[in-house]
Amino acid sequence: MECDPIGIVSTPFETTSEAPSQGFHEDAAGVVHLDEAYAAGLSGFDASSVVIVWWADRADRSVLTLDRDPSRGVFTSRSPARPNPVCITECDVIDVEGSTLRVRGVDMVDGSPVIDLKASLRDRRG
Amino acid sequence: MECDPIGIVSTPFETTSEAPSQGFHEDAAGVVHLDEAYAAGLSGFDASSVVIVWWADRADRSVLTLDRDPSRGVFTSRSPARPNPVCITECDVIDVEGSTLRVRGVDMVDGSPVIDLKASLRDRRG
Repeated sequence: MECDPIGIVSTPFETTSEAPSQGFHEDAAGVVHLDEAYAAGLSGFDASSVVIVWWADRADRSVLTLDRDPSRGVFTSRSPARPNPVCITECDVIDVEGSTLRVRGVDMVDGSPVIDLKASLRDRRG
Repeated sequence: MECDPIGIVSTPFETTSEAPSQGFHEDAAGVVHLDEAYAAGLSGFDASSVVIVWWADRADRSVLTLDRDPSRGVFTSRSPARPNPVCITECDVIDVEGSTLRVRGVDMVDGSPVIDLKASLRDRRG
């Protein structure tokens, strides 16, 4: 199953070791730059939060257990290292202008490919 | 970016029209059948909930706005129809046996490919 990037996300984190573990740091700001071809997918966007689905292109896809605790499998964690390095980060939205979303709460390495944006489950319109 | 299925999920929903909109029905039970090659990824699994990342292989990838409201882009929703039909469903775990997870709260069409399992954000070990 082939995923095409729909854009990239700019963040303050240049390496995987700088990027925070998800959910523990929620103040870093970042920018999702959506490719123009997908801009219509943001029509009517007015939510205060967004789920960013991104691809950890620097993650090790060969591991099935955690380096820090080999008794735990990767599916018990949210570590980016896993067979399909699809990561999920829910961010607060600062503003949206055209195909650019400024957000708060990023944990991706700078330049990571974005594969999807979704409404938060807190948004009950589905 | 190529995603390989790590298993499939069995659910009571045979068609997309039968499958409930995410978050609105939370009682349907389903079973994740992980491929044996990925079973080690479940080692030590003891959580009461799990995030299932699945591929909506019957979704229309060509749309950027919602059929039900063309003023809204797909990225304002959680509809499976979107450029990369990666879907996220958080389920309660009934039990785990080997590479089989019985869960509650499914909304996938029966037989959908699973591409990842993650700890819930409620699990603060990350």
